[in-house]
Amino acid sequence: MSLKTSEPLSIVVVGASGDLARKKIFPALFALFSQDLLPDDFKAFGFARSVMDDDGFRTSIMEHLTCRYVPGEDCAAKMDAFLARCHYISGDYSSSDSMLDLYQTMQAHETTDMVNRLFYLAIPPSVFIATAESLGAAGLVACDDGSPWSRGVVEKPFGRDRASSDELAAALGLVFTERQIFRIDHYLGKEVIQNLLVLRFSNAVFEPLLNCEHVAEVHIDWSENLSLEGRAGYFDKYGIIRDVMQNHLLEMLALLAMDQPQNLTAAAIRKSKVNLLKSIAPPELEQLVTGQFSAGELDGREYAAYTADKDVPDDSLTPTYAAVRLHVDNPRWKGVPFVLSAGKGLASRCTNIRVRFKQKGGGIFELHDSKLANNELVIRVQPDEGIHLSIVTKIPGLGMKLGAHDLDLSYGRVFKDSIIPDAYEGLLLDVLRGDRSLFISGEELSAAWDIFTPALHQLEQKAVRPQPYPFGGIPPELP
Amino acid sequence: MSLKTSEPLSIVVVGASGDLARKKIFPALFALFSQDLLPDDFKAFGFARSVMDDDGFRTSIMEHLTCRYVPGEDCAAKMDAFLARCHYISGDYSSSDSMLDLYQTMQAHETTDMVNRLFYLAIPPSVFIATAESLGAAGLVACDDGSPWSRGVVEKPFGRDRASSDELAAALGLVFTERQIFRIDHYLGKEVIQNLLVLRFSNAVFEPLLNCEHVAEVHIDWSENLSLEGRAGYFDKYGIIRDVMQNHLLEMLALLAMDQPQNLTAAAIRKSKVNLLKSIAPPELEQLVTGQFSAGELDGREYAAYTADKDVPDDSLTPTYAAVRLHVDNPRWKGVPFVLSAGKGLASRCTNIRVRFKQKGGGIFELHDSKLANNELVIRVQPDEGIHLSIVTKIPGLGMKLGAHDLDLSYGRVFKDSIIPDAYEGLLLDVLRGDRSLFISGEELSAAWDIFTPALHQLEQKAVRPQPYPFGGIPPELP
Repeated sequence: MSLKTSEPLSIVVVGASGDLARKKIFPALFALFSQDLLPDDFKAFGFARSVMDDDGFRTSIMEHLTCRYVPGEDCAAKMDAFLARCHYISGDYSSSDSMLDLYQTMQAHETTDMVNRLFYLAIPPSVFIATAESLGAAGLVACDDGSPWSRGVVEKPFGRDRASSDELAAALGLVFTERQIFRIDHYLGKEVIQNLLVLRFSNAVFEPLLNCEHVAEVHIDWSENLSLEGRAGYFDKYGIIRDVMQNHLLEMLALLAMDQPQNLTAAAIRKSKVNLLKSIAPPELEQLVTGQFSAGELDGREYAAYTADKDVPDDSLTPTYAAVRLHVDNPRWKGVPFVLSAGKGLASRCTNIRVRFKQKGGGIFELHDSKLANNELVIRVQPDEGIHLSIVTKIPGLGMKLGAHDLDLSYGRVFKDSIIPDAYEGLLLDVLRGDRSLFISGEELSAAWDIFTPALHQLEQKAVRPQPYPFGGIPPELP
Repeated sequence: MSLKTSEPLSIVVVGASGDLARKKIFPALFALFSQDLLPDDFKAFGFARSVMDDDGFRTSIMEHLTCRYVPGEDCAAKMDAFLARCHYISGDYSSSDSMLDLYQTMQAHETTDMVNRLFYLAIPPSVFIATAESLGAAGLVACDDGSPWSRGVVEKPFGRDRASSDELAAALGLVFTERQIFRIDHYLGKEVIQNLLVLRFSNAVFEPLLNCEHVAEVHIDWSENLSLEGRAGYFDKYGIIRDVMQNHLLEMLALLAMDQPQNLTAAAIRKSKVNLLKSIAPPELEQLVTGQFSAGELDGREYAAYTADKDVPDDSLTPTYAAVRLHVDNPRWKGVPFVLSAGKGLASRCTNIRVRFKQKGGGIFELHDSKLANNELVIRVQPDEGIHLSIVTKIPGLGMKLGAHDLDLSYGRVFKDSIIPDAYEGLLLDVLRGDRSLFISGEELSAAWDIFTPALHQLEQKAVRPQPYPFGGIPPELP
C-alpha cells in the first residue's frame, strides 16, 4: 500500500486547539512533512471553537514542532513551509453552517476538486455525535467510492460501555462507512508494540514457549507518576478502566496472546485479535480491584488527593487504579492468568508486558533465591524501550553461584543511531496509505467493551468504593 | 564438598619446567593462594629434568604470576610468601631414585606425615608411562583409603587412539585408582562452559527448544590464528583431531546435547555425558574433511607453511584443520547435524557453540534476507565470553523493516566488575576438594576415543592428504 504523493490532500483536524492536536497530530504531520512523506499538494485545516486567525493558530502549533528530522539550520525554513500550509477556521462543532464555512475555506485553498480528505476528530466525547452530524449535513465527507477518498480518524473514548459505544458508532456510521473509519489506539503505533508481531511470528524461538505449558503468568502493567494535570473533569466520567485498560492494555494482551494471523493483511490481523478478545470471559468483581489515590509525596513533592481536584466531586467513586485477572478460554492459554494493572499517581511511569515462565520442573540446581526461579520475557513499551529475557546464569568466579541476568535488547543501546518515531507519525502515514492493520475494527471495539462492560456496570450499581492508596505509594492488591 | 584448610597439603608438579606448569599451574596455585583458598600448611614441589636450585625455579615461575586478586602494594609480599613454599628437585622421570630424592625433599619440608598429596603430571606423553611407574615404585602415592589422600592429575594427550589410551590408563592404574585420577580438560573449567549446565538446567526457556523439532544444526567451532609456535614436534604426531576435537569439542558437544543428569553429582553428570557420547556413531571419512595450512599472510605478517617448520617432515600428512559432521543417534537429536570444526592458522582466534534453529514454519513475514531466517543461540567461549540469541526484530522507524539483532549477555558488559578466573584455578580447587564433576572419567575418555579412532586409523591407512589452505585463509569445506 503506498501513498500517491501526486494526489492532493487536505487534512482537517476538528478540535485543532486541543492538546491532542497541538501536541501530537500537528507535530506528527510536521515530522512526515520533514521526511517528504506527505503529498506535494498538501494542506491542513484546523477547526475549533476558539477564535483565532491563521497566524494565531500557526503560533499555537509551532511550539510543539521538533527539528528531529531536519538538520538545524534548515529547520526554520521547513517549519515556515509547513505552517504556510496550515489554516484555521473557528466555529461550532454542532453547526452545519460552521462546517460549510470550513468547507468554503478548504475549497478556497484547494487547487482542484479531486482532493483526498482526512478528517481527524480530535474532540471531546460530549460533542462527538453532534460533530459527526454537522460534518455529514454539510456534505464534506465524500462517499466511500474510491477516488478521491475521504477518511475519518477517531480516538478513544469510544463511549462508556458497549451500548454507548454502539450509539457513537451508529452516529459515525451515518457519515463514514466502516471502511472509511480509522480508530486509533496510539499504543498500536508504538515501536515495541509493532515489534510484537515480528518477535512472535518471524522468530522460531518464542512461539513454542508462549502457551500454558510454559507460561505461568502474564502481566501487563501501565503506571503513571502523575496526577490528572487538568484532565480530571474528563477523567472522572471515565475512570482508569475505560481510560487505559479497555483499550491500550487489552490491545497489548491481544497482540501477545492471539494466534498467528493467516497473513499480514489488516483483515487477518483483526480477525486474530477479535478471536482472542472473544475468548476472554468478562471478569467477575472478585477478579478485580480498584483504587483511588489519596494525598501523598513523591520525589519530595506533595500531591493532593484525587478528590481534591476542583473538577472532581468530593465523593467521587472513580478509580484511578485498577487491576484485573483475566483468563483466555482456549487450549493454548488454559489456566494462565493475564493480570492487567493500570494506575495514575503511582511511583513511576512505566508500561511493561512481562511473561513469567513456569519454573523448570525437576531442576537439578537449587534455586534458593525465588527471584531466580522464573525466567521472564519483558517487553518494555515505555520508557527505555527494549526486550529482555531474564535467565539464570552462573556468576563468574570460583564455585557455583547463580544469578538472574538479562539477555538484553535495549533499543537505546542497540538502535542508538535510530530516531524512534512517535506513534502518531506511523499511524497517520498508515491512514494516508489506507493501511488498516494497526487500527481497531468495529468488531474489535465491541469485543473489548464486552469484556469490561459487565464489571463496569456492577462497580457503578454497587457503588463500589475504590481503595485509597497514597500518591506515589503502593496500590491495593488483587484478591 | 569442601577443602579442609587445616590439613597439610603437598602439591607435586612433575614437569615443572614446562610451559603448562609455568604458565598455568603455578599461576593458578598463586591465584588460589592469594584468595586464601589453599591450606595453611601448603607446599609445592616442582620436579623436572632441568637442573635448577629453588631460587632459579622461583624466578622461572614468578614471571607468570599475576596480581589480579591482591591489591598492588601487597602483591610482592604475597608472591614472596608463595614462592617461599615452592621447592624444586631435578631428576629423571623414569628413575625411581630420582623420585626417592623428590620424596626425601618433600619429607624434609613437610611438618607431619599426615599430608594430602596432589601429583600433577605435566609431562610430555613420551615419558608418561615411565613416570607413572617410577612414582609408583618410589611409593610416593598413598593407597586410596581416604586420609591423608593422594590424587593424580593428568591432562591430554591421553594416547593416540582407543588402544594407546587404554595402555596409558593401565599404566596409570598401577599407581592411582580411578577414584584418585583427575583427568583435566581445561575447557570444562572455562566460565562459559561451566555455565552450559546452568543455562540448560536451571532455566525453563532453553530446554524446550533444544531438540530436533526446533534445532536445524549445531556448530562447534574452534579456531586459532597462530602457527605451532614451538609445539610442532609434538603436534605433528597428533594432529588437530586428537589435539582439540576428540577432547575439547566433544566435551562441549556432550554438555550441550546430553540429557539432564539425575542430579549434580559427578557420577550423574558423567553418566549423562557418556550416554550422549555413546550415541554418536563414529564418522565415515565422507563426513570429514582435513586441511593443512600452507604459507599465507595475516594482518600484514607472513606465515610459513606448516611443513616448513623444522620439526615437521616435509611430507607430513598431519591435519592442522578438520571438520566433521556428527549425528547423535537418539530421538531427541534425530537428523540434527553437529558440525565440529577446529583449525590452526585460521583468520581469527575464537571458540563458539552455535545452535541454529529451524526457520519458523508458515511465517507470515517475508524474510528476504537469508541472514534473518534462522534464530541462533551463540555460546561464545573465547574470547569475549558471552551468550547471544539472535532474533528478528523490527528496526525502529516508519514502515516495517526487519533486522537480526542479539538478545545479548556479554560477560564483559554484564559482569564487568567480576574477575573471570582462569579455568585452571577452579579445576585445581575442585581436585583439592575431591569434586570430580568437571573431570573426565575413564569411561568417558574411552567413549570419546571410540568416536574418532576408526576415522583416524582410516586417514592414516589411506594416507589421506589434507587439503592445503593458506595461513589466515579459508579452510576446506565439508563435502
